[in-house]
Amino acid sequence: MGLIDDDRLFDAEPGVRAIARSLYNGVRNLPLVSPHGHTDPRWYAENEPFPDPAQLLIVPDHYIFRMLFSQGVKLEHLGVPAADGSAIETDGRKIWRLFAHYYYLFRGTPTRMWFDHTMATLFDLDERLTVENADAQYDQIAERLQRDDYRPRALFERFNLEVISTTDAAIDDLKWHRMIKDSGWKGRVVPAYRPDNVVDPDFAGFDRNLDRLGDITGCDTGTWGGYLDAHRQRREFFKSLGATSSDHGHPTAETADLKAKQAGKLFDKVRSGKADAEERALFRAQMLTEMARMSADDGLVLQIHPGSWRNHSPSMLKTFGRDKGFDIPTRTDYVKALKPLLDVVGTNPNVTVVLFTLDESSYARELAPLAGVYPALKLGPPWWFHDSPEGMRRFREMATETAGFYNTVGFNDDTRAFPSIPARHDVARRVDCNFLARLVTEHRLDEEEAHEVAHDLAYNLVKRAYRL
Amino acid sequence: MGLIDDDRLFDAEPGVRAIARSLYNGVRNLPLVSPHGHTDPRWYAENEPFPDPAQLLIVPDHYIFRMLFSQGVKLEHLGVPAADGSAIETDGRKIWRLFAHYYYLFRGTPTRMWFDHTMATLFDLDERLTVENADAQYDQIAERLQRDDYRPRALFERFNLEVISTTDAAIDDLKWHRMIKDSGWKGRVVPAYRPDNVVDPDFAGFDRNLDRLGDITGCDTGTWGGYLDAHRQRREFFKSLGATSSDHGHPTAETADLKAKQAGKLFDKVRSGKADAEERALFRAQMLTEMARMSADDGLVLQIHPGSWRNHSPSMLKTFGRDKGFDIPTRTDYVKALKPLLDVVGTNPNVTVVLFTLDESSYARELAPLAGVYPALKLGPPWWFHDSPEGMRRFREMATETAGFYNTVGFNDDTRAFPSIPARHDVARRVDCNFLARLVTEHRLDEEEAHEVAHDLAYNLVKRAYRL
Amino acid sequence: MGLIDDDRLFDAEPGVRAIARSLYNGVRNLPLVSPHGHTDPRWYAENEPFPDPAQLLIVPDHYIFRMLFSQGVKLEHLGVPAADGSAIETDGRKIWRLFAHYYYLFRGTPTRMWFDHTMATLFDLDERLTVENADAQYDQIAERLQRDDYRPRALFERFNLEVISTTDAAIDDLKWHRMIKDSGWKGRVVPAYRPDNVVDPDFAGFDRNLDRLGDITGCDTGTWGGYLDAHRQRREFFKSLGATSSDHGHPTAETADLKAKQAGKLFDKVRSGKADAEERALFRAQMLTEMARMSADDGLVLQIHPGSWRNHSPSMLKTFGRDKGFDIPTRTDYVKALKPLLDVVGTNPNVTVVLFTLDESSYARELAPLAGVYPALKLGPPWWFHDSPEGMRRFREMATETAGFYNTVGFNDDTRAFPSIPARHDVARRVDCNFLARLVTEHRLDEEEAHEVAHDLAYNLVKRAYRL
Repeated sequence: MGLIDDDRLFDAEPGVRAIARSLYNGVRNLPLVSPHGHTDPRWYAENEPFPDPAQLLIVPDHYIFRMLFSQGVKLEHLGVPAADGSAIETDGRKIWRLFAHYYYLFRGTPTRMWFDHTMATLFDLDERLTVENADAQYDQIAERLQRDDYRPRALFERFNLEVISTTDAAIDDLKWHRMIKDSGWKGRVVPAYRPDNVVDPDFAGFDRNLDRLGDITGCDTGTWGGYLDAHRQRREFFKSLGATSSDHGHPTAETADLKAKQAGKLFDKVRSGKADAEERALFRAQMLTEMARMSADDGLVLQIHPGSWRNHSPSMLKTFGRDKGFDIPTRTDYVKALKPLLDVVGTNPNVTVVLFTLDESSYARELAPLAGVYPALKLGPPWWFHDSPEGMRRFREMATETAGFYNTVGFNDDTRAFPSIPARHDVARRVDCNFLARLVTEHRLDEEEAHEVAHDLAYNLVKRAYRL
Repeated sequence: MGLIDDDRLFDAEPGVRAIARSLYNGVRNLPLVSPHGHTDPRWYAENEPFPDPAQLLIVPDHYIFRMLFSQGVKLEHLGVPAADGSAIETDGRKIWRLFAHYYYLFRGTPTRMWFDHTMATLFDLDERLTVENADAQYDQIAERLQRDDYRPRALFERFNLEVISTTDAAIDDLKWHRMIKDSGWKGRVVPAYRPDNVVDPDFAGFDRNLDRLGDITGCDTGTWGGYLDAHRQRREFFKSLGATSSDHGHPTAETADLKAKQAGKLFDKVRSGKADAEERALFRAQMLTEMARMSADDGLVLQIHPGSWRNHSPSMLKTFGRDKGFDIPTRTDYVKALKPLLDVVGTNPNVTVVLFTLDESSYARELAPLAGVYPALKLGPPWWFHDSPEGMRRFREMATETAGFYNTVGFNDDTRAFPSIPARHDVARRVDCNFLARLVTEHRLDEEEAHEVAHDLAYNLVKRAYRL
Repeated sequence: MGLIDDDRLFDAEPGVRAIARSLYNGVRNLPLVSPHGHTDPRWYAENEPFPDPAQLLIVPDHYIFRMLFSQGVKLEHLGVPAADGSAIETDGRKIWRLFAHYYYLFRGTPTRMWFDHTMATLFDLDERLTVENADAQYDQIAERLQRDDYRPRALFERFNLEVISTTDAAIDDLKWHRMIKDSGWKGRVVPAYRPDNVVDPDFAGFDRNLDRLGDITGCDTGTWGGYLDAHRQRREFFKSLGATSSDHGHPTAETADLKAKQAGKLFDKVRSGKADAEERALFRAQMLTEMARMSADDGLVLQIHPGSWRNHSPSMLKTFGRDKGFDIPTRTDYVKALKPLLDVVGTNPNVTVVLFTLDESSYARELAPLAGVYPALKLGPPWWFHDSPEGMRRFREMATETAGFYNTVGFNDDTRAFPSIPARHDVARRVDCNFLARLVTEHRLDEEEAHEVAHDLAYNLVKRAYRL
């Protein structure tokens, strides 16, 4: 059976498995639609070969290095760059061997499934990575990465990606996206409007970023009105390059709806650098509602990714910078937090707000009941630590009975690990098909309907929700 | 197999399924005991035919119209009355067709199971509702609803209801209950004492309701003592018409036990209309403890249904009024909140307090440990968004190991959707039998014991707990 | 099949069951390692016969008497001593009969599994306890308890215990541990350093305990420096008798890292008895961090058991004292609460902090993400109300995908119920093997790897984590 089994993730019970397999066979080859992720548009623009296996598969993957770090492996030894530029391991082969030594740590994790899937389907390897075969596997992958059919655009096509969205700062010039557009290549790569560093006063360089936003747009970002206009203008610019969504990663889901005058005063204080923690939080809250209002006008889908305590370890932040695996989920309230925003756009069927969570206890209690009534709300798929077989299963079990399938939006791979994208979609499709198969065997759904739902979950819902 | 399968909701594994089926066969025909719900006593009193299919099955069912609204259907088009009396759809057939068009939204939801069950068993339909068969099904149902054997009392008997409790405002005159009693009909319909609108100062018309309470009882509801006496008197009146329980739907589970003098002062402030939000919450908290004290005296079972944020959307409240699907669960604490009440009656084995929750994270953490030691506490069944196959399964999985089966109280249908009552009890019996079957196949319970427990869960526990 | 089935707790699906059985057969006879529990060292020191069946199996077991109390049985009738010394039932046979009468209450609970396992394997009984056989079973057990091969040391050996840790107050003289050591008996019984009553100002007798701590160590426990030195000295003393861990049972997981001067001032205030509730909480928080610092120096593993609201009922506390089943889990935050401690020792791979929880909603949201990156953190097994088949299953399902298996530490029996120890480890081994078998049948793990993981979960991880 090789490294990955064709029945993986299907229930052991033969009746369920047979139906799951049948449902999966109906959707396994559908194009991948990736409406939210973090791949680098430069890859598709320049179409240069990827670097060595470790730089591609290990070094940038925070799922991988956080697990190794948790067991005492130093990030320097894994080639993770230090903020102060001090020496780190640069020999891809050594990093690869270290990873191979610790590969057993990933037993039972989604990383293991994604990695094996990538090895098997992309690099034609049929043995699990071990200390013994590490060198040979490294060589085989390295050889492939030099081939033209392993360049970014070739992989994009091989992966059957119909469209992929990157995530881009509001003040990004989107030059790679323009270059892709101008290149004549048919692959559809679109940006998403991520204004965190001009919306969140706690972001390093916030003030400078606002100046820059003013420079780019010609708006006076020293005033509340000019600042909002600058957003509107940038959103249009992003749309002109294909964007259909914005994305917002706040510490909480708090929203606010201040009167214009109050909001203006708050902006002035924030801009002056004198706002205290509560006022800075209120400003973020207000900006979510402003973005929702702009969504009502320009049609960008609003994604809210709240509840991550970023950079939990100050010493690690200092040594290695942001996004180094020290982002920890926190308890997140939605019912009170979203009310101001919902009072403005919640019952507007022309607005789409996609809600994500890192707090599974909110699925059945808050998110499904909210999305099950407000036309503007849809539920994003399991996010981050939860985009795993058990996490996806729990999502369906906890959200479906109240929100149904049709207030959800299909799958997001949400990854910067480009080679793992097919593996991630594959896991989602399998888990969803298996969930549907259980409903069928328990006579809660007809098999014919299940085929239709499987197709919707794998393909139609994401296109509709994200307007892609 | 028709519209509903005889093995629905049973595990696909043949061994589990066989035992589940056997357990279910032992309880499927037991009488239904419905200790808490929202059917209209007028139905049983007047025994008039039900209106058209849409008015019976669609318009009043908030599970149904909230889902359709979430997908952009206007409530006006579903015949839901607007608060200002503006025009809405009144043609039952048109409403029915609209529902048929969107029926696929309910895939994977309990509404779908209840609805199909009702169609199959009550109206002898054997095809799932579609746009194509909508008219024919409408006609068949409409025809049946004109028959005498589809009038409320006939259905009550057909459903094998042993007893049903309605939920009635403290200031209700219970005239329909008296009419039922006087009619000589043998169906047992009892009221439940629901004093929310004379206990919760945030209720519209609170002050007027207290005046009315005074008028009805002859007590001086301008004083704390007179107000408590009025409650005592009303509770006796409800008991005289068969009530065995009271019911309390507060935003939280907060309780308080102020000294009499303090409580009196608080009452005066509340009565004066000058109490702030905190004082109004404290008053609600105090009243739960007062009700518990009265329970110790008069034996009414105290039900607490906390944690719903009612009427979350102000615009929908304004346009359509209360109870229109915009009630959202919130995180709910019990351990601290209930302590004042438990300090008063918690160890009193003659008091029964039935706890409900909309926050499943409290099952294993708070509710089962509390009910597993305090003799006054029992766990209510999964409530509202959770009275579904997955919700019921999680309840048993999370509560049983600490509270056992015997600190739970059987099933509540808790519905105003009269025709769905058999379907709801059937789902509960099936899910419980399936859970027991899993315990049997995993050798955690003998099959013989499981039969006994199944009987207890379906029939004995509810009668004992609710003193019915 | 007798009282317990050889396939108990294995999935009904034959494929899963076969693999689970095979995995279990590989670990069922491994020695038991018990790194945290509450057995009495005096038993092993004196090696006297255990008292009558009720005094051994019923009276001290809070799982048992809390369930009976919840159904109206008085603790006096179960022989639970009253604080004021008033008369209670002392006839073991009567207590036993009462328990037999109510034994059905434990259906579906782990107590039932543990009890049946003990009856079957330790006392060779093959019928479930009933009112009818109660006397005969009592006699058979009583007879056994008089035999030499049922004395504590003989049972220790029969249970195949490799090592057991007791839990001992910081000011305990450990005389029983010294007596065991001096006796020449080869059984390994070690203490654990539990300083709650000299760390938590809310403990009755706190001030007196600090004086005593000063007397024992010769340190000036009237000063912050002397107080810390006293802890260091006691930890060394505990280590000299084999301790490898400390244990801390705080109401929350709050930690703090005050500057030395501030901490000293806080200590003075606490010592003066004038600290308010917030300051007392801050002191507990500070002490967790101090203990972690000492762990970095002396290598004791730090266990944190937070989140139990102890002695919830004041009337029961007054009548029966502490630890009478009225300890209720509360919602527990870790991400914010542990930050001060983690800022000090979190990235130190030489420190081991084992985290426990009574709030399962934190498994996937907080605990697995934290333990999956901080080298100092490991996840303790399901604790207290959650050390049950469903609880253990949920732990693996919710923690494994993010933390992996290797950031967990095997099983703790955590019990004072000595005869139940083999049953508890057996349940854990079975549930873990069944979880692994599911991964294997779903092709998420190879069977060969699963055997290795099963061995690690049952034996290797606990030895490594606890340095035993």
